[in-house]
This record gives sequence, C-alpha cells and structure tokens, in this order.
Amino acid sequence: MSDVITAIVQIDCGTDAVTTAANALANVAGVAEVYSVTGRKDLIAILRVPHLDSVADVVTTKILRIPGVVNTQTQLAFRVHATRGADRESIDDVPESTTGVPEPAIR
Amino acid sequence: MSDVITAIVQIDCGTDAVTTAANALANVAGVAEVYSVTGRKDLIAILRVPHLDSVADVVTTKILRIPGVVNTQTQLAFRVHATRGADRESIDDVPESTTGVPEPAIR
Amino acid sequence: MSDVITAIVQIDCGTDAVTTAANALANVAGVAEVYSVTGRKDLIAILRVPHLDSVADVVTTKILRIPGVVNTQTQLAFRVHATRGADRESIDDVPESTTGVPEPAIR
Amino acid sequence: MSDVITAIVQIDCGTDAVTTAANALANVAGVAEVYSVTGRKDLIAILRVPHLDSVADVVTTKILRIPGVVNTQTQLAFRVHATRGADRESIDDVPESTTGVPEPAIR
Amino acid sequence: MSDVITAIVQIDCGTDAVTTAANALANVAGVAEVYSVTGRKDLIAILRVPHLDSVADVVTTKILRIPGVVNTQTQLAFRVHATRGADRESIDDVPESTTGVPEPAIR
Amino acid sequence: MSDVITAIVQIDCGTDAVTTAANALANVAGVAEVYSVTGRKDLIAILRVPHLDSVADVVTTKILRIPGVVNTQTQLAFRVHATRGADRESIDDVPESTTGVPEPAIR
Amino acid sequence: MSDVITAIVQIDCGTDAVTTAANALANVAGVAEVYSVTGRKDLIAILRVPHLDSVADVVTTKILRIPGVVNTQTQLAFRVHATRGADRESIDDVPESTTGVPEPAIR
Amino acid sequence: MSDVITAIVQIDCGTDAVTTAANALANVAGVAEVYSVTGRKDLIAILRVPHLDSVADVVTTKILRIPGVVNTQTQLAFRVHATRGADRESIDDVPESTTGVPEPAIR
Amino acid sequence: MSDVITAIVQIDCGTDAVTTAANALANVAGVAEVYSVTGRKDLIAILRVPHLDSVADVVTTKILRIPGVVNTQTQLAFRVHATRGADRESIDDVPESTTGVPEPAIR
Amino acid sequence: MSDVITAIVQIDCGTDAVTTAANALANVAGVAEVYSVTGRKDLIAILRVPHLDSVADVVTTKILRIPGVVNTQTQLAFRVHATRGADRESIDDVPESTTGVPEPAIR
Repeated sequence: MSDVITAIVQIDCGTDAVTTAANALANVAGVAEVYSVTGRKDLIAILRVPHLDSVADVVTTKILRIPGVVNTQTQLAFRVHATRGADRESIDDVPESTTGVPEPAIR
Repeated sequence: MSDVITAIVQIDCGTDAVTTAANALANVAGVAEVYSVTGRKDLIAILRVPHLDSVADVVTTKILRIPGVVNTQTQLAFRVHATRGADRESIDDVPESTTGVPEPAIR
Repeated sequence: MSDVITAIVQIDCGTDAVTTAANALANVAGVAEVYSVTGRKDLIAILRVPHLDSVADVVTTKILRIPGVVNTQTQLAFRVHATRGADRESIDDVPESTTGVPEPAIR
Repeated sequence: MSDVITAIVQIDCGTDAVTTAANALANVAGVAEVYSVTGRKDLIAILRVPHLDSVADVVTTKILRIPGVVNTQTQLAFRVHATRGADRESIDDVPESTTGVPEPAIR
Repeated sequence: MSDVITAIVQIDCGTDAVTTAANALANVAGVAEVYSVTGRKDLIAILRVPHLDSVADVVTTKILRIPGVVNTQTQLAFRVHATRGADRESIDDVPESTTGVPEPAIR
Repeated sequence: MSDVITAIVQIDCGTDAVTTAANALANVAGVAEVYSVTGRKDLIAILRVPHLDSVADVVTTKILRIPGVVNTQTQLAFRVHATRGADRESIDDVPESTTGVPEPAIR
Repeated sequence: MSDVITAIVQIDCGTDAVTTAANALANVAGVAEVYSVTGRKDLIAILRVPHLDSVADVVTTKILRIPGVVNTQTQLAFRVHATRGADRESIDDVPESTTGVPEPAIR
Repeated sequence: MSDVITAIVQIDCGTDAVTTAANALANVAGVAEVYSVTGRKDLIAILRVPHLDSVADVVTTKILRIPGVVNTQTQLAFRVHATRGADRESIDDVPESTTGVPEPAIR
Repeated sequence: MSDVITAIVQIDCGTDAVTTAANALANVAGVAEVYSVTGRKDLIAILRVPHLDSVADVVTTKILRIPGVVNTQTQLAFRVHATRGADRESIDDVPESTTGVPEPAIR
Repeated sequence: MSDVITAIVQIDCGTDAVTTAANALANVAGVAEVYSVTGRKDLIAILRVPHLDSVADVVTTKILRIPGVVNTQTQLAFRVHATRGADRESIDDVPESTTGVPEPAIR
C-alpha cells in the first residue's frame, strides 16, 4: 500500500463557467472532491494523488486546461495530523447545537 | 441517512503552537482531517458535520478556543460536484508523470 | 415551518451595468434585499433560502449569469444570533444622536 | 412613517469572544440581525436605523465598545433596489436544486 | 436649511483618461471638489449632496458613466466632527514649519 | 492671497478611541473637516494648509500624537480640477432621485 | 534659488515594454532618475520638480501617456530629513561588510 | 573566481502556458533552477548571475519576453548567510519524521 | 571610480517615532536621502552604497535597529536607465503647469 | 540515490533579530541556502529534503522555533523543470549587459 498526498486547490472560474468547470473537474483522475464554496473563490478541489509529481500533472496539465478555469492556488499537505474521513461514527459525534437563536421560522 | 456538510477551515497558529494545536484539532468531533500545509496558513482542517449550525459549534466554540489558534477562515461547501474520496481505484487512476525533469538525484 | 438560510453576497459590476444588474437581481427568487453600497463593491444582495443547496442555485446559476455581474463573494450565515428584522419597535429604539457636530447647514 | 437606513457591519472578534460579543450585539438598539459567517470576518450585524447619524451612534459608541470586538468595517446602503424581506412567499419561490451531486449520504 | 451629506469617492481611470475624466467630473452636480492625488488612485472627488439617495445618483448614474472611469470606491461620512472649511483664519493658524531639513536649494 | 494645499488623511483608531480622537483632530490647526466614515478606516480628516511642509507638521507632529490614533495614510492633492465647495447653488443642483425602490417605510 | 519637490513614482509596464518605457521616461523633463527594481513593480522614477502642480504635469500628462506604462503609484515627499546625494564622501563612509558568509565563489 | 548573485523570481503564467514557459525558462542563461510551486504563483526561477546588471538582462530582456509569462516579481539576495547546496551530506542530515500521523494508506 | 548601487527603502515607524527615526536615519552612512512621504509608509530612505553586501549592512544592522522603526521594505535598483540628479538644468526644464484649475485662493 | 524535494520558505523576523535568526537557520539540517532579500520579507531559506514529511520537521519544529522568527510562508516545488545549479559553465553563459545606462560613477 503506497501513501496518498493530499492537496487543496482553490479555483477561480469565469462567471458563467462555474458549473461546467466543476463537472469537468469531477472527471479528472486524482480529483477526489469538488465543491462550490463561500468566499472569494468559486470552487475547491481536493486532490488525492500517489506522488508529489502527480500534483503537477493534475493541476498544470489537467485543471488549468479546463475551459472556464481562470486561476488556481494550490495548498499541499506536507504533514497529516488526522484523517478520520466522513464515516458514520465521527459525524454522529457532533452534538446538536445548544447556543445561538433558532433559525427564523418562515411564517 | 442524513447528508454531511463539508467545510474547509484555514488556521493561523502562534509560531510555536502548530503541532500542539494540530493534535488538539484532531480530537474535535466533526473534524475529519487536519494537515500542515504550504502557503500563508499553518493548518487546514476539513470538517464533516450533519447540520449547518454544527459548523458554528465546531469553529466558534471548539477550534477558536484551542490554545495557540490565532485566527480561522471558513469556506463552506454549498454544492457538492464530486466526492469520490481517497479509495484505491481513484488514486491508481493518476498516471505516472511524463513531463518535467527527474528530481535531482542526490550524489 | 422550515428554517431560512441567510447569505450576504458582495457583487462587482461593470461600470455602466450597476443599475441594470441591480434591477435583474431584484427579480431573482431567493434574493430578499438588494442595495448599492459604499466601499469597493457595487452591490450587496441578501439571500433568504430554504436549503444550503439553494445558495448554489441562486449564486451560481442565477446571479453569476446576470449581464454586467463581474464577480461575487458569498458570506453564509452558519449561526443566527439575532433576527429582529426592521419592525417599528426596534427602529424607534435608536435614540437621537447626541455626539458629533450638526451637519454643516447649507447657506 | 420615516425611512430606514440599512448598513452591513463586518466584525472581527478576539478568538474566544465571538459568542459573548454576538450576544451583546443582539441587544443593541438598531441592530436588526447578527450572524456568525464564513470568510475572514467572525460576525455580520445588519443595522436598520432611522438617521444617517444613528449609524455613528450604533457603530462608534455601541458596537466598538463591546468587549471582544477588535475591528469593524461598515458598508452603508445608499440605494435600495429591493426589500422583499424573508416572507413565506419569496422563500417558497426558490425551486428545489436540480444540479450538483446529492450530498454524500453518511453510511 | 437642509443638511449636506459628504462622501469621498476614490477613482481609478484609464492611463490616458485622467485629465478628461477629471474635467467631466468637475461638471457633475453634487461634485464639490476634484483632485489628482498621490497613491494608488488617480482622482478623488468630494461630494456634497442633500440626500443619501443622491449619492447613488451621482456615483452610479453619473461618475461611473464618465468615459475613462474604470472603478470607484465610496467612503460616506456618517458623522461630522468638524467642518471649518478652507477659510482665511484656519489656514493662517498653521504655523511655519520648524522641523526637517530645508528643501535642497537648486544650484 | 497664497494657495491652499489639500490633503485627505485616512485614520485608524483604537476601538474605544474614535470619538475622543475625532474631537482632538477637530482642534488641530490646518484640519478643516473631520468625519466618521464607512469602510475599513475610522476617520477621514481633510487638511487645508498653506505649504507642502505644513502637511508634515500637521500629520507627523500633531495627528500621529493624538492618543488613540493608531495609523494614518495621507493622499495629497497635486492638481486641483474643481473646488466649488458646499455652497447653496451646487447642492440644490443635485436632482431628486428618480431610480431605485423607495426606502422601506417602517410600519 | 527655488526649492525642489521630490516624488517617487512606482511604475507597472506591459511585460515586453519595460526597456522602451524606461528609455522614454529618461527623456521626460522633471524625471531625475529611472531604475529597473526588484519587487512587484517594474520601474521606479524619481522626480525633482519646482512646483507641486508640476507633479501632475509629469505624471498625468507625460508618464501615463508613455506606450507600455500600465499603472503608476506616486509617493510625494512632504518633508525632507536628509539630502546628501551620491557624492564621493558619503559613499566611502559605508564600511566594508563584516557579517554574512562570503558570496559562493564560482568553481 | 568572481562572486555569484542569487535572485528568486516568482512568475505568473497564462493558464495553458505553464509547461511551455517552464521549458523556455530552463534554457535561459543565468537561470539555474525552475520549479512548479504551490501558492498563488505558477513558477519559481532561481537565478545565479555574475553581476547585478545581469539580473536586468535575464528578467527584463529574457524572462518577460517568454510567451505565456504574464508577470514577474524579483527578490534579490543582498546577503548570503548559508549556501550548502544540495549535496549528499546535508540531505542525509535530515532525520526521519517522528511526529504527525502516518499518511493514510490507500486501501 | 567604483559604481554606486541605489536602493529605495520604505519604512514604517511607531506613531510617535517618525521624526526621531528620520533624524537617526539621516546620520547613517550610505543613506543619501530621507523623506516623510504620502501613502501607507511613514518614511522613504534612498541608499547609495558601493557594494551589494553594503545594502545588508545599512538595512539589517543599521536601519532595522533604529528605535521606532517597525518594518522596512527594500526595492533594489538592478538597472540604471537615467541618473540626471537634481541639477539646475533638469529642474528648469519642467514647464509651468498649463492644465488644472488654479489652487483655491484663500480669501 | 533518492530524490530531493525543494521548498522556498519566506521568513519574517523581529526587526532586531534578522542576523541572529539567519545564523540559526544556517545550522538547521535540510536548510541548504539562507539569504537576506529585498521585498517585504526579511529572509529566504531554500530547503533540500528527502521526504515530503521532512518539510514539516524543518519548518514546523525547527524554523518556527528559532527566536526572532515571527512568520513563515512555504512554497513547495511539486515539479522540477531545471536544476543546473550554480556551476562555472552556466554563470559564464550570462553575457555582459548591453542595455541600460552605466552605473553613475562616484566623483
């Protein structure tokens, strides 16, 4: 079993290209997760690749060539402190919220 | 089966608190993955939580109170385009690199 | 009664497209309020939507496709601390100003 | 009936003061809504006040003096393009999402 | 006598449009002063208008439509602390400089 | 009659020092106008001084020494394109607003 | 003998226009020195002019109209603390370096 | 033996020009190392040149004219504190990692 | 006759230390000119030194150790395009201003 | 022979700690080169390490704990396009400069 290298890629898209770019990203080998996100960037792709050099393949020769992708910014994980993943047990651990005002009910 | 909400939290730490803060993060319910990363930020935590309100619990009442955490910036995923996760099949899909100069061998 | 999710969307427009973009925004389902604002951005839209996923519908497939909209930046409310709204009682609570020099009368 | 002036105030808090500051904000006359939000800022307060000068009262003499508030940045609405508010009709208008991958079910 | 609302508008122009844009600004009702200024911006316009809504008229429908104006950023005065204006008395109050080296005489 | 040099000084204050700093500014010779403003900065002071060197006197030896002033950023006007000032005629020139939705009446 | 006003102008150029823009700058009256510099900007021009208004002439009507100049940012000296110039005596005052590792000799 | 001057040049490329620009850089005299890197920039080139003026030759007349290079930012080393280079001895000195969670094995 | 290397150093000072820091700078060998300047920075020092390594001596071991100096940012000139200096001839070349409104006379 | 991973670390130091921090850096295993550099940062360290995880060891547990180091920003090379190093041949390739004005001789 070889290790996996994780990278978080922040992606800017043309205003009318977010969905098409997201769909293309979802089909790139090495791209594990793709989300529309809040904030200045349009999309985040989470990469899981076997080698450091694969990051270049995925970012430079795949992602940057997707129509509508305008800019990328890569953060590479050089140390893993926890990787529990999204399994049932860890999600159920999160207690119901106790603080804050209940969402404004829609009347 | 309820849905899971994903958030990416960028974290600044005090210069001598990165490792202790990372270890504390790894034990917070709702925090699925914690990495030391390249770039301006020290750590990235990937949250997997059942409710929008849980994001506040995890970020405001847990992460922000970890000694050594100086600042956080949360990006919340409001649309999922792909979630293959880091399984064998998707990692092996990533072809060996063909471009670029081989790493400088250490003589 | 289901909860409502609030998001604040900061919007950049082309220099001669602010008013037309604002009028188009005002007709998008899920957009509750639209303002011309001070600062670097041209417009702010306040969204009130039933589901997290609706944020993507409104921002990605509606707002970003309005002619003249150049860029958006979304801040999503993940905890409600107060939602009094703009009713008579809360507005009248605001006392008349006591400090500061009276506005320069126009002679 | 006099008009209401709307302002959006972005607020930075000390790391362990977000919840206490939010609760204090909720009790300030003129503050209509308070949220924990994604992004660089900790809180957003939406002000609804009767006079331009009241913005100074609320921001300078109230909000800036709440323990734990470190910095504020005010965007004032100088033109209203839409104010439907969060009533039943406008929220129901938002159609169910059609694009994007269903949230990853928690197994 | 009604009050006057003051706003400071920072303006970016195309490189060869600063003078023509400045001259056009000088003829816009509500624009009291126009300067070429140091720093990142090309021009500053100081607005004196009777109503909050007039700020939108002057900025959105006049200034932003002047050929060569690329971007504007508006700071609105929501409290007046002093408005002595540039009359003889206040200018003469400014004492001759005592510190610093005399300007290098041109030999 | 000598010329007057205009400078716009953006001022950051400590959170609880805005009003006291503003009052102190109002008494500095050469400071013509002082406002609380929207945006990242707390105050704007408009200087009207007879000599370039006076800008240093007012900014460096007066404003920067006012308790509560944390930072200043000076923009100096090196060309005057218009100086109508805030007299009756120019203010009345500004037509009543025609676009935008009337402010939400408070019911 | 009249005083001289000094201004430092940071200049962005088109990627293939740095040398031609620099040569054109060198021939503008009032431009005393022109350098290619490290950092984000391509060129720095140091202006020595007799009047404040000349800064506008040189920057707005000369520099900004040089082909290949994309953006300028002007810092104006409003107080002189020292102007020794680059004469023999002051340069020789600078002692030989004592700290730091000798430059890596090229073998 | 003359000294060598080291400079680190951060390079932005057009989205589909990173690899071609990198290959062209690799053939420029004075460019010792070229990498695709994490972060906002696409490439880093490390220059080793004999004279300060050579930096201008390499950056201004070579690198900036490579098709696909959009922007450069140069940091010049003005003091050398250590230059061990990448020889066998210094690399082997780096102990095996003791902290952090082992990379997530791919199942 | 050896060449001279020019560097422009932007300097941040503590709010009440600008004048004392400027005076100390004026006495540092290698510092040719010191100005209070407009913009975000407090002071600019222009260095004229004989060797690249002297830049480190002047910046790191002299300027950074002046009480009240908080931060420096050095731009080094790696190519000279013009160095006319501030002699009589070049200053007189600058024609009287023809555009812009005459400064507002002080009545 | 194993591959070497290269990382460029930008380092901020306390104003009076640059030289001591640089000397400490020079003794850290894995740090190949250390320079005082122009620009906003004080130092650049070039790392040559055998494993991705070693980057965390060197940055987090060594560099960040050096007294006087205030902040670091790591750019990791994920593709090598050229590594000629600073040998005789490549340095001599750099032709004598042909453009630009000769440095101002010191009279």
